[in-house]
Amino acid sequence: MIKEYKNIEIKLSNSGLSPTNIILTHNHLNDEIESKVAGELPLTIKINNTEIITLMTLGTKPEELTLGYLRNQRIIEDIKDIISIEVKWNTGVSSVTIKHKDIKEITDKLKNKIVTTGCGQGTIFSCTLDKLYDNTLPDTKIKRSEIFNLLSKITKYNDIYKEAGAVHGCALCNKNDVLEFVEDVGRHNAADTLSGIMWLDKIKGENKIFYTTGRLTSEIIMKVKHMNIPIIISRSGVTNMGVELAKDLNVTMIARAKQRSFLIYNNKENIIFD
Amino acid sequence: MIKEYKNIEIKLSNSGLSPTNIILTHNHLNDEIESKVAGELPLTIKINNTEIITLMTLGTKPEELTLGYLRNQRIIEDIKDIISIEVKWNTGVSSVTIKHKDIKEITDKLKNKIVTTGCGQGTIFSCTLDKLYDNTLPDTKIKRSEIFNLLSKITKYNDIYKEAGAVHGCALCNKNDVLEFVEDVGRHNAADTLSGIMWLDKIKGENKIFYTTGRLTSEIIMKVKHMNIPIIISRSGVTNMGVELAKDLNVTMIARAKQRSFLIYNNKENIIFD
Repeated sequence: MIKEYKNIEIKLSNSGLSPTNIILTHNHLNDEIESKVAGELPLTIKINNTEIITLMTLGTKPEELTLGYLRNQRIIEDIKDIISIEVKWNTGVSSVTIKHKDIKEITDKLKNKIVTTGCGQGTIFSCTLDKLYDNTLPDTKIKRSEIFNLLSKITKYNDIYKEAGAVHGCALCNKNDVLEFVEDVGRHNAADTLSGIMWLDKIKGENKIFYTTGRLTSEIIMKVKHMNIPIIISRSGVTNMGVELAKDLNVTMIARAKQRSFLIYNNKENIIFD
Repeated sequence: MIKEYKNIEIKLSNSGLSPTNIILTHNHLNDEIESKVAGELPLTIKINNTEIITLMTLGTKPEELTLGYLRNQRIIEDIKDIISIEVKWNTGVSSVTIKHKDIKEITDKLKNKIVTTGCGQGTIFSCTLDKLYDNTLPDTKIKRSEIFNLLSKITKYNDIYKEAGAVHGCALCNKNDVLEFVEDVGRHNAADTLSGIMWLDKIKGENKIFYTTGRLTSEIIMKVKHMNIPIIISRSGVTNMGVELAKDLNVTMIARAKQRSFLIYNNKENIIFD
């Protein structure tokens, strides 16, 4: 089923899957236990039938993931160039149709890629880096009380993690509330899915906060920059390169955030200690 | 400095880095706090000057990581084909020299790659899958008391995680002890580094146990299969595809392992409830 999206001229299928399966396990006492397990399916993105990449995903929002991936990797610059996205799980393909028949410009972009591995990485194409440094993020201020309020609200989410583990969650927040919360087998997919939702709903980033349960590596900082979000908060730690990139791009960076404590790794000036 | 390795005719540099830096952060009370941060450096593996891949790594054991990556991805089948590995951080290159000057066979292997993203993935080349199903793992038995003993011993490790967060740890164990414990920014790198150590030291896998703090996705199951290790234990959860692959390859799969509890996801028959 392909349906037209309400706010924009784009047709998206509606192929989101249920995120968990129940399987039979045994515990350390040899008792049978029904356990929920997170899904993990390959999804190959094709643009006008040309293969771009295969992502492993939980599959709950494959159309938004496709959109956000193309946006965050700077493969497609304008959502208006996209006519439709149709996800079919029997073939594991997300078919993107764009207006320009000649996609040489896109395939040229993909030739120079930096393939990174390790937990929470993937592939960066050189086009991803092209406009990264063109501008920096605004100095959006946030109160300590607003941070604690958000952290407290976020604890209500993380459904799949609580059920099945093995996923990471990312949230798009404004200063008062959690607007969207997405979980996926990788925090990168969750971040890309949020980016896709923002693109579809024309949500601006500059007054938003990005929260993640995962670590702040350089790649996650790149993604929030492409989403134009100036504040990032993580429950986990940071890497050195993540901090360096946050400095370069003016990302306000908070990590090791618990219910009543956090550490500021960059742009302390943007935190109001109320 | 290049030195010859003791057990085998291979020359390795000794370019391991200190894993953490100290940087100045501020806590939620606006107090200055010195925080340790995990490193994250690009390392480009080249074989006879041909670029293979760029990994992001903590950099503590770059030579072993290079070896294990080449082994686990099935890019090089025999360690005897390798003359030397020299890692230079000023260029971020791990230069592998192999005996055969013509590396067309290798570059051909790399043409068909499945690039996956998301937390804890990376790139699988089609050659990685080639011999995956040729044989399955042995039914090595393990006692519940041995599992609890290992879990208790492992809590003493995880040094970098305790200091800086943002890393995953993997351990190579026999039934009585932790033999090697490696941390890296990705659990995949940590697993590959263990594989490199096993290759160098000619350590057999079939009577070993692989432990990881990270999640058991299909890619980690593939790696333990290539290392010929029949039992895997994780502190975290599993994905559906991880369980399916463990069944296909006869991996005994234990996850959500705490000090005094765990869940068995595959091959319950290999656990002796003593």
